[in-house]
Amino acid sequence: MVAPERRPVVDLTEEQARRALPLKWGVPDDVLPAWVAEMDYAVDPVVMGAVHDALAAGITGYPLERDPALGEAYAGWAGRHFGWAPEPETVREVVDVTAGVRVALDVLSGPGGVVFPTPGYNAQHGLAGVTGRAEHLLEVPADAERAEIDLDRLDRVFAEGAGTLLLTQPHNPWGRAFTRAELEGIRDVVVRHGARVVSDEIHAPLVLPGAEHVSYLAIEGTHDHAVAVVAASKAFNTAGLRCAQLVVPSAADRARLDAQPMSRNDSWSPLGVVAARAAYDLGDPWLASLVERLDQQRALLATLLAEHLPDVRMRPVEATYLAWLDASAYGHDDAAAVALERGRVMVSSGASYAPGATGHVRLNFATSPERLTEVVERLARAWVQ
Amino acid sequence: MVAPERRPVVDLTEEQARRALPLKWGVPDDVLPAWVAEMDYAVDPVVMGAVHDALAAGITGYPLERDPALGEAYAGWAGRHFGWAPEPETVREVVDVTAGVRVALDVLSGPGGVVFPTPGYNAQHGLAGVTGRAEHLLEVPADAERAEIDLDRLDRVFAEGAGTLLLTQPHNPWGRAFTRAELEGIRDVVVRHGARVVSDEIHAPLVLPGAEHVSYLAIEGTHDHAVAVVAASKAFNTAGLRCAQLVVPSAADRARLDAQPMSRNDSWSPLGVVAARAAYDLGDPWLASLVERLDQQRALLATLLAEHLPDVRMRPVEATYLAWLDASAYGHDDAAAVALERGRVMVSSGASYAPGATGHVRLNFATSPERLTEVVERLARAWVQ
Repeated sequence: MVAPERRPVVDLTEEQARRALPLKWGVPDDVLPAWVAEMDYAVDPVVMGAVHDALAAGITGYPLERDPALGEAYAGWAGRHFGWAPEPETVREVVDVTAGVRVALDVLSGPGGVVFPTPGYNAQHGLAGVTGRAEHLLEVPADAERAEIDLDRLDRVFAEGAGTLLLTQPHNPWGRAFTRAELEGIRDVVVRHGARVVSDEIHAPLVLPGAEHVSYLAIEGTHDHAVAVVAASKAFNTAGLRCAQLVVPSAADRARLDAQPMSRNDSWSPLGVVAARAAYDLGDPWLASLVERLDQQRALLATLLAEHLPDVRMRPVEATYLAWLDASAYGHDDAAAVALERGRVMVSSGASYAPGATGHVRLNFATSPERLTEVVERLARAWVQ
Repeated sequence: MVAPERRPVVDLTEEQARRALPLKWGVPDDVLPAWVAEMDYAVDPVVMGAVHDALAAGITGYPLERDPALGEAYAGWAGRHFGWAPEPETVREVVDVTAGVRVALDVLSGPGGVVFPTPGYNAQHGLAGVTGRAEHLLEVPADAERAEIDLDRLDRVFAEGAGTLLLTQPHNPWGRAFTRAELEGIRDVVVRHGARVVSDEIHAPLVLPGAEHVSYLAIEGTHDHAVAVVAASKAFNTAGLRCAQLVVPSAADRARLDAQPMSRNDSWSPLGVVAARAAYDLGDPWLASLVERLDQQRALLATLLAEHLPDVRMRPVEATYLAWLDASAYGHDDAAAVALERGRVMVSSGASYAPGATGHVRLNFATSPERLTEVVERLARAWVQ
């Protein structure tokens, strides 16, 4: 049997990382960054090569209004990876996932509020307000053993006037990949209220062994009320190249989107399109290595925590490279601030995902084993008295 | 005396242009494109080199939340070219100029409507509605000899409830660079009504010999009610790299912008920042050649029209590389459609800038002398019976 084709994950040196990732690594020299969701790995050379070729051809101007090859590429990818694929013509370019959520709310949702489960992705806190809608927090206790959307509470918040659920599937920072049964339960509540769903699925390629990604759109009876926002940029570390995709299965919804003034949504980059197409068409051999590496890092993190920080509770990480850690047993008012001040590690404060969750942090483990070891050892020195 | 440093403008071959400019050149093989505002010239090699270096360093991820060097670069550029410069710390990144206009309206303007002079930039038609505001067209007759904002009408439309003027300075498609006196007149009306101005100045680097660019912000008494939206991307053919800038002289306005949820405005690309910095800091020797070339093209166009299409009226082009042509003397219901069908030239229909102006077209002359000659000869074959 021939081994499947593979391209390895290449770790960035600290010097390389500081150049390549100016936001994440824009920290003082003695600080290790484990915060913003970028990986300390070189971009897949095949994806980078495609972008390089586009730039060499002089592609710095306007993209096509729609690139049919992108829809084909995404559909092919989704079919191979998730066992469900949209029709290629249902795919629309947007500049990034959060902008895609915004466009979907602005154009497709009624004036009712937006349900935002918390802890929730910090960059999407407040997004409902940007669209002129109320934000209804659906709180999952920050220290719950397993994070699940409570269907009774979802039912109530729709009854109180919310009109759209902003689903994050897989969830950041919960680390959850919702099961088909969970999604069916959500759908039933949504349908009962005539509500809508915007499903941010940017982490779908990063579901780790033991779990699987089910798109909300793969659930029967969702196409008339839901869109998914997808991207290659999280798995391939290319967020700055600026192209995500809306998957819009309803022809009526597509007609409404396509009838918008171009100023509603015309800011994606042609280089982002090139990167996404290359990732979807050619990225599997690199992604397989990445998922393997992230699986190893996940296991290493559990081992390191057990050894150095036995009182930290880590929620099971089914997907993403972001661990949600409950460090409140160590008694610090602001665990992230103590990590930075005493440990010289920058993690994301739990409070940026759930109001008041300052005993929690989100830790990015997409780095080398050596750096992750150093991160946990530093956290232990910072947190353990 | 040493000749000033220059880098030449390099014409793209048709084959190169079809690869580099997929939107503009996404036309059938036998059609010459003279529509969307991109130039058939290679990007300045110094700017391209900076982007290439950034990509080689692996910069494909999130940009800095603010890059102080960009504000410095823009301020230096503005001082050299326009004789007025903002404080560097007043500059904010946005993904592109139209998105910058949208953010400025959303965050800084009251609920009153937006005054949109027409003929006006087609991509910004409807933008007021995207922000939830009424659009008040301030019509300049499409066939006026000189396009000017009628201050009495501006006064009336503010009195009727408009709250913000969307100024395009220099104007596309009027080809006008407003004078200081005109801008002062506009300011007086705006101030009288307590209104605001968003000044889209993307074409400022493309003011041609005989005119000068005066930023609306260079007019006394504007800083408390106005922002400018600026970019290197139009002059340097890098719209797809995705970074424009808001110049926000009022500290109170900056505080409101900076307090927004990040989802309001975080979609610019780090490669766009790199390109803008390189253009502002290092682009002068190329821009000087470009302006010289566009000046020659402008003269060539006038000569060609006099020879082949003597009944076309071309409004004086003080700035931009976009000529507003009145072809109604030739009696076609839709001059652009006839140009495409009979002449195999794609120009922009006047109707996309001013309702009903189907006897007019906008013609992009940023190409080679040979191609421009061919374009006008084809238009003559199409329009002259």
